[in-house]
Amino acid sequence: MTWESYRVRPGPVQLQDWPTSDGSALSRPEAEARSAEVLGLLSDLQERLYAEGQQSLLIILQARDAGGKDGTVKHVFSGLNPQGIRVVSFKVPTLQERAHDFLWRIHAQVPAAGEIVVFNRSHYEDVLVPRVHAHTDLATIQERLEFIRAFEQLLHSRGTRILKFYLHISPEEQLKRLKKRLENPQKHWKFDPGDLIERARWNDYTLAYEAAISITSTESAPWYIIPADQKWFRNLTISECILHRLQEMNPRFPTPSFDPLTVAIE
Amino acid sequence: MTWESYRVRPGPVQLQDWPTSDGSALSRPEAEARSAEVLGLLSDLQERLYAEGQQSLLIILQARDAGGKDGTVKHVFSGLNPQGIRVVSFKVPTLQERAHDFLWRIHAQVPAAGEIVVFNRSHYEDVLVPRVHAHTDLATIQERLEFIRAFEQLLHSRGTRILKFYLHISPEEQLKRLKKRLENPQKHWKFDPGDLIERARWNDYTLAYEAAISITSTESAPWYIIPADQKWFRNLTISECILHRLQEMNPRFPTPSFDPLTVAIE
Repeated sequence: MTWESYRVRPGPVQLQDWPTSDGSALSRPEAEARSAEVLGLLSDLQERLYAEGQQSLLIILQARDAGGKDGTVKHVFSGLNPQGIRVVSFKVPTLQERAHDFLWRIHAQVPAAGEIVVFNRSHYEDVLVPRVHAHTDLATIQERLEFIRAFEQLLHSRGTRILKFYLHISPEEQLKRLKKRLENPQKHWKFDPGDLIERARWNDYTLAYEAAISITSTESAPWYIIPADQKWFRNLTISECILHRLQEMNPRFPTPSFDPLTVAIE
Repeated sequence: MTWESYRVRPGPVQLQDWPTSDGSALSRPEAEARSAEVLGLLSDLQERLYAEGQQSLLIILQARDAGGKDGTVKHVFSGLNPQGIRVVSFKVPTLQERAHDFLWRIHAQVPAAGEIVVFNRSHYEDVLVPRVHAHTDLATIQERLEFIRAFEQLLHSRGTRILKFYLHISPEEQLKRLKKRLENPQKHWKFDPGDLIERARWNDYTLAYEAAISITSTESAPWYIIPADQKWFRNLTISECILHRLQEMNPRFPTPSFDPLTVAIE
């Protein structure tokens, strides 16, 4: 499998060096069969993680508009037991949220021991949008990136493992997807005319992502730049990353605090 | 389908009048095939509910120990998009929670518009356990039941539809399940020796459930007493209830705030 090759190692990142579609020999039916297999393995590991109640997993999804965040949530995580998984979609901050530092609302939603939490957008929005629209100076952005590193390190120290995925699509693929949303009335609700303003800033977002990913891809909270033009490849690659991480975490059913042989039930 | 017959109509309830296993002619393979079909319909309705962003659905699961709450969550709700569904498991209240009224922690977790939320245990614990163990006098329990009626009516008034399921098992079935948990090391973590103390109070719990269900089964927040000795029958019946309710709610994709024909993307 190729999933490991999408992990970002320390050092500068240029998105143009990373593929938006897969060059491997894998066919779509093969990928979908493997995805189903991985889901079964993930289900088992999720139950152990929940039962163990010690470690937790935080999965962060970032992408440009129509990059596939919602689709990833739907296809990678449907089928897992919703009792052990929680999806948090961060929207424009509320008045109350804006009255606090940018990590306040994020911290409130991180996984508790035993949980898997998926962030659909995250604290990374606060180093992307304000930078692109020049609401915030670069020194403040840089400071936020340092706060993010320290924050993620704090989570790691308490047993939270972190995986961060940038869903990497080409401008052509984004165009295709935005057009599809306009053509299909059942997808109109997903189309926001404001997305076109962001699309026009393609290169600015590229720079903002490159800076964020370079500075915050650490040993304990790595970024993966996932080729995301093909949805089935994206889904499988993300599933494989999560599977590998959970296998490393190796959660175990806890030993009982009682002796099962001495319990009598009537 | 028989799911409608398990709805509790206003008036006194005696659990002994309600079956713990199904008397219908449905076979297990038939039920499982229908469950898969219902899941597909639920997925579609869930997406519409989320897109519409107006109404919400609250599903409450109550049962005796080993009654099948966790199994219901796993089998009925795995397969739905976790972005639109949230499961809340209420444990013994924390110190902070006990410093507030009994509905405080519950209110914080009710579904927002567009959401489906499942309560695995709920505010009903506060009219069961304290009554059985006589920590709380009957007048207080009665008062709490009235507060619950008003609270659920409040949620209903804001567009939250409520379904409450009591998973009805026989004492023999509970015995079988508790023994299984003791025999299987992968299930030890689900066994709590304290469950045996509760099992010994079987009849007291029956009385407590009967009082709670009688008083709080209203038009807007009905109870269903689900035969739960057979897991596959329980799963299907609950799925059918939810499907029917969502179909009645009839969520619709919202009309766009823009004219799709005038949008040009480049």
